[in-house]
Amino acid sequence: MKKTIFYHAGCSVCVSVEQDLMELLKNENVEYVNLNEDISRLEEAKQLGLKSVPALALANGNILHINFGASLEELIKEKI
Amino acid sequence: MKKTIFYHAGCSVCVSVEQDLMELLKNENVEYVNLNEDISRLEEAKQLGLKSVPALALANGNILHINFGASLEELIKEKI
Repeated sequence: MKKTIFYHAGCSVCVSVEQDLMELLKNENVEYVNLNEDISRLEEAKQLGLKSVPALALANGNILHINFGASLEELIKEKI
Repeated sequence: MKKTIFYHAGCSVCVSVEQDLMELLKNENVEYVNLNEDISRLEEAKQLGLKSVPALALANGNILHINFGASLEELIKEKI
């Protein structure tokens, strides 16, 4: 089953948004992926259409980019 | 009591994000404010720290700017 995934990079903007979302989405099944640590997920995030983190990839395929922590392109350049 | 407010401007990005958030936040008490229609709320949104719509102003004072529909500055210039 498709699920909601929260992608972040451990930065301060990401952590703040994560805490707020955990509060808002407390009843939802959300996977938390730190792209700074789990670099094997960077390509998947790019394919889903992520431009920056933090972002929520919804089960319906839409991406919600929330505030701005880091660009995905920069993370990919740095990590791969 | 402080509450969560979703500010938008009726644009296509706003409508899409609104639909996704309504699904995600179905158990939350959220006020929906269309700043394109309810221009008396523009100043309040600016004071809260909104830079663009759509955005969620949380009860804890944090602002979640979600994707990008329009800048608040532009809306204010256009409406006031």
